[in-house]
Amino acid sequence: MRRMAIKLEYDGTDYLGWQVQAEGRTVQGVVEEAVRRATGAAGRVPVQGAGRTDTGVHAEGQVAHFDTASELEPGTMARALNFWLPRDVSVLAARQVAEDFNARYGAVAKLYRYRVVCSRERRPLGRRYRLRVPVGLDLAAMQECASQLAGTHDFTSFTSAGGDLSSTVRTVLRSEWKRAGEELHFFIKADGFTYNMVRALVGTMFEAGRGKLSAGQFAEALAALDRRAAGPTAPPHGLALVRVYYPPGRDPFAGPAP
Amino acid sequence: MRRMAIKLEYDGTDYLGWQVQAEGRTVQGVVEEAVRRATGAAGRVPVQGAGRTDTGVHAEGQVAHFDTASELEPGTMARALNFWLPRDVSVLAARQVAEDFNARYGAVAKLYRYRVVCSRERRPLGRRYRLRVPVGLDLAAMQECASQLAGTHDFTSFTSAGGDLSSTVRTVLRSEWKRAGEELHFFIKADGFTYNMVRALVGTMFEAGRGKLSAGQFAEALAALDRRAAGPTAPPHGLALVRVYYPPGRDPFAGPAP
Repeated sequence: MRRMAIKLEYDGTDYLGWQVQAEGRTVQGVVEEAVRRATGAAGRVPVQGAGRTDTGVHAEGQVAHFDTASELEPGTMARALNFWLPRDVSVLAARQVAEDFNARYGAVAKLYRYRVVCSRERRPLGRRYRLRVPVGLDLAAMQECASQLAGTHDFTSFTSAGGDLSSTVRTVLRSEWKRAGEELHFFIKADGFTYNMVRALVGTMFEAGRGKLSAGQFAEALAALDRRAAGPTAPPHGLALVRVYYPPGRDPFAGPAP
Repeated sequence: MRRMAIKLEYDGTDYLGWQVQAEGRTVQGVVEEAVRRATGAAGRVPVQGAGRTDTGVHAEGQVAHFDTASELEPGTMARALNFWLPRDVSVLAARQVAEDFNARYGAVAKLYRYRVVCSRERRPLGRRYRLRVPVGLDLAAMQECASQLAGTHDFTSFTSAGGDLSSTVRTVLRSEWKRAGEELHFFIKADGFTYNMVRALVGTMFEAGRGKLSAGQFAEALAALDRRAAGPTAPPHGLALVRVYYPPGRDPFAGPAP
């Protein structure tokens, strides 16, 4: 047996998120099925992902690992997986990794991006990948909130019920709004994310962007350690897992393909 | 009766292009139906578009006009049309215009953009809006071809059979490849376009980008006035009508909304 790491891009629109559920189509489910078929395994092959993206959330750089007896060379493995995967999920690269590599527990940080376009009228192009808000948003006001997130905080106020994590303390390494053409993008890099954390942060920063919440009130909401103190959870389709980070020398996808 | 101009964005994926056909769903067809319903007209209301985009081609700034007895104020008209339109077509703005305004014959130029991403593996995100090519493309080589297009030329070599236009001479005002993140974008602005012209140009420039055609051979293909002298027609989904230009003082959408 050897361990393989894969980097994945997917359009999460038609999936109930990454993680296998009792019922319904999940990204992990279709990837596990593709691995089973590509490697000729007799039963289910567990595939562990770094980030358990929610229903409707996309990924540009999800990382996952699995163990296989197959001797397919990594480039061939990537193409074989893509042969079996539906067209909204793609393996961008595959690498053989050390037996103790763990895509989830070995990750030191993840980067997410939330895309927004302000437009009174419906915007068909890219509607699967960005949230449209029918009002203008004050970028500077949202950035004033975002910049307060750097460092270590208890994110209870931005954590939905239903997550299975015992701690709500996370360290944020980057938290930034940027203009991208007519869109506004929120980038957040952290050592981990609590359940719905990015979407709750974005939904609350929208209130600041609409002039309904000051930066001081945002800080108070964070300090309140109470989900009811913060704003609503933004819809999933604007969100994408952009990149997963591993310690130096442990990133399977650092550098050019072998 | 008064004349209204509308600016449209649409995802052309699920349409047989702009123009109404004997059978099948077209953008013009759904817009005409929306106008009929929004204005309470008894029969078909002809809507004339500036650019007759092909099957699968998108638009960010199509312009069209129609006549109506409705007295709806333009902002209300835009919202009423969007109420009746499917979600992949949207009226971005509506304006009342002079009776002699003609969206198609009054246009002095149109700007199209073709989006490409070079990636050996499938790329699910944005797959409706950009062509993926599984090889690298030499941007400089493609730009050497593109820069030859500025000015007035006979585009017979880049015109598919089946168009209904008598002349194939067009004046190109801008012709440029640009890097946009990991994508390559081709922008072309001209006083008009022959049938499949942009896609034939792009398909032929891809040959230059792959090192199979020199800039000199591209010039020869243009001068040959023979469709067989040029390269293949690129697929439609990378293409979008970005903007329609009118003479100064005649652009319904110049300046802020009234």
